[in-house]
Amino acid sequence: MLCRIRPLIALVAFLFVVPAFAQDDDPLPSWNDGATKQAIIDFVTKVSEPESGDYLPPKDRIATFDNDGTLWLEQPMYVQLAFALDRVKELAPEHPEWKKTQPFKAALEGDMKALAASGEKGVAELVMATHAGMTPAEFQTIVGDWLATAKDKRFERGYTGLVYQPMLELLAYLRQRGFTTYIVSGGGIEFVRNFSQAVYGIPPAQVVGSSIKTKYEVVDGVPTVMRLAEMNFIDDKDGKPIGITEHIGQRPIAAFGNSDGDYQMLDWTTAGDGPRLGLIVHHTDAEREYAYDRDSSVGRLDKALDDAPGKGWIVVDMKNDWKEIFPPKE
Amino acid sequence: MLCRIRPLIALVAFLFVVPAFAQDDDPLPSWNDGATKQAIIDFVTKVSEPESGDYLPPKDRIATFDNDGTLWLEQPMYVQLAFALDRVKELAPEHPEWKKTQPFKAALEGDMKALAASGEKGVAELVMATHAGMTPAEFQTIVGDWLATAKDKRFERGYTGLVYQPMLELLAYLRQRGFTTYIVSGGGIEFVRNFSQAVYGIPPAQVVGSSIKTKYEVVDGVPTVMRLAEMNFIDDKDGKPIGITEHIGQRPIAAFGNSDGDYQMLDWTTAGDGPRLGLIVHHTDAEREYAYDRDSSVGRLDKALDDAPGKGWIVVDMKNDWKEIFPPKE
Repeated sequence: MLCRIRPLIALVAFLFVVPAFAQDDDPLPSWNDGATKQAIIDFVTKVSEPESGDYLPPKDRIATFDNDGTLWLEQPMYVQLAFALDRVKELAPEHPEWKKTQPFKAALEGDMKALAASGEKGVAELVMATHAGMTPAEFQTIVGDWLATAKDKRFERGYTGLVYQPMLELLAYLRQRGFTTYIVSGGGIEFVRNFSQAVYGIPPAQVVGSSIKTKYEVVDGVPTVMRLAEMNFIDDKDGKPIGITEHIGQRPIAAFGNSDGDYQMLDWTTAGDGPRLGLIVHHTDAEREYAYDRDSSVGRLDKALDDAPGKGWIVVDMKNDWKEIFPPKE
Repeated sequence: MLCRIRPLIALVAFLFVVPAFAQDDDPLPSWNDGATKQAIIDFVTKVSEPESGDYLPPKDRIATFDNDGTLWLEQPMYVQLAFALDRVKELAPEHPEWKKTQPFKAALEGDMKALAASGEKGVAELVMATHAGMTPAEFQTIVGDWLATAKDKRFERGYTGLVYQPMLELLAYLRQRGFTTYIVSGGGIEFVRNFSQAVYGIPPAQVVGSSIKTKYEVVDGVPTVMRLAEMNFIDDKDGKPIGITEHIGQRPIAAFGNSDGDYQMLDWTTAGDGPRLGLIVHHTDAEREYAYDRDSSVGRLDKALDDAPGKGWIVVDMKNDWKEIFPPKE
């Protein structure tokens, strides 16, 4: 019954292979060694090692990530806004009235100042006009086609290539340690779902986001879910803990953000009992990406930056903590 | 490098063990053999066997289950209504006005006729008054305490013991075959989340249901999500495809229900391309459970029963298809 060769092979393999493997086994190779990286590894280790006093079972290892500015770039404008502007141009021939109506006129003319002046209401109008009147499946096709061809001008690269390599490693590390990783985005839930699985390894059901209302109707005998030009839920600021409660039904033990829009998610997450991790990505690298915080209209980071030390939130200094910003170009 | 004993052991083991194993390996032992059981097994097999022409990858194997009347009993009243009535009695000393106000008066007096007369609006009022004004965590404690002690009068058994054994087997079988199983309930999402993991093996994040609004606020410096006495979403009828779209972000390939409230979920699910399964649990066993359909105020099954043959939905005849109704008493 016994096969005595195998254990010997295993022993030999262990002696020669494992030390080399251990050295290569840095779970966060794009993070520079230092306090930030160590704090992350310490937290993950203590909640996932059964012998640790802070051990938590996998079902409690819930981690939530903001998307814009935390997992991918958000400058000079949110990627979804770039998508909406391109959609306005695409749909303009069907809407001659847009040439004379704000915020569409500004969108068509690329007048970002007038667009900014239209405020959140204006942006919401653009989204409604370009994201509704179709099924979720049809919307997925439109977003997928756009992401496959649209390029960021500065980096001359598609947007799904402009995700942060250190954060991709962090997502993978957490999942490898039994965490379930969620996106909790102020952006549109269906927009993010388009690439979350392929780019982040996060399935559609683990994306929480802002949404427009949908309506169920039977069209020519075909059961159909139709996207409506009506806001349903804003998953930002106060909305993040509310969206998490509704979708996940558990308070996370770790939350990752980059702006004051993530403050409530960070605060609620880290106020829970037991081991908690709050982390803010601080954009400090104008050369390799962007440097912005308190005065930025996109991804403003002000109060959360002030309160981070008192709350025990880790602040990632992109310039010094990250070896790489984006994944290598294919 | 080769170990020649192992293949021999494996062959011997196969010859002697596998036939006996196969016999015991009925994934649905509480289902009587017949067309219903075979149709389920055929569907699951064809979508999960890589060599099948109908194979689908695990990410597409999404199955949604109604809860009341599909996974556990719903007669003589929804379990959550029994909970709400007990809560009204519990809270009555703080609300002397309830003795004179409907539907609370009816609830306190156990006057089911007057309660029925108050309609959905009355039931919603009871739910609001008894399910709000606390955090989700506090609500979980209250529901958990109640479920641990409340008993169904006819079966003299706690409600989590009055789940359908054949459906527990079906849930386990689907998951073993790479499906992700979701509850999509007209009942309250947080109510169902209380026992979904322990009883059905379904984690909180895989429960979709009706919900009341919540509010985020910082109370005495403590970040808090508070349940409000305001309806947020009704996950019934048209609401089921909408709730699935929002929470899961994918059209299921299999849906399981028992009433006209599940019609739209079944219709939308089975109208999709490729292999699809729709199944209705028909309550036909007055002796072991209940027999009801077209004329029942709880779990009315009328149009879905008429349309099932034309839509290709399987109708489970509880009396004849199920060997056992409930799990053995502990």
